[in-house]
Amino acid sequence: MLPSTTLTTLGLIAGALTSFSFALQVWRSWRTKSVKDVSASMYVVFSTGVILWLVYGMLRHDVALIVWNALTLVLVALILALKVRYTQRTATDRRALGTELDHPG
Amino acid sequence: MLPSTTLTTLGLIAGALTSFSFALQVWRSWRTKSVKDVSASMYVVFSTGVILWLVYGMLRHDVALIVWNALTLVLVALILALKVRYTQRTATDRRALGTELDHPG
Repeated sequence: MLPSTTLTTLGLIAGALTSFSFALQVWRSWRTKSVKDVSASMYVVFSTGVILWLVYGMLRHDVALIVWNALTLVLVALILALKVRYTQRTATDRRALGTELDHPG
Repeated sequence: MLPSTTLTTLGLIAGALTSFSFALQVWRSWRTKSVKDVSASMYVVFSTGVILWLVYGMLRHDVALIVWNALTLVLVALILALKVRYTQRTATDRRALGTELDHPG
């Protein structure tokens, strides 16, 4: 059996990678202003799971579970917010373009 | 404190939701054949984290961690495979279109 500090460090690195990875999707969506290919239903189901992990961590008084899942929840909420924002913007742009085509010049 | 079966059930539901959510992104990418807005670097970093969670689960003999992370890894690998496949296809289509424009007819 490995010493518990090695296990704790492994859990910390694993949690940091899985949580912070979502910041890369936030950055891409923010930079490109395009979210068409991102599955909203995936992020809705994923957030629900993360909230349950957070409750699970609180009930077990597991600080690592609480911290990583809270951070993940913030990043995933940002991805969902960008999805809603840029989907609405694309719809508005399409309607505006439609109006221009109906009344050119 | 809640009975341990309630905690175990909560962990099972949380794990099922966070793992299976990725199937929804697999389904969307497969259906639309479009992956432009999906961040490849997010899924590379996330997979690395999931592999470490898997090792952590094995070292702790935690069956739930092993099962959910193995399932997540398969689904995330599928998303990355679709990202590579459809990105290459888009590049090939663009080159083909470029050739057509150079030599019309």
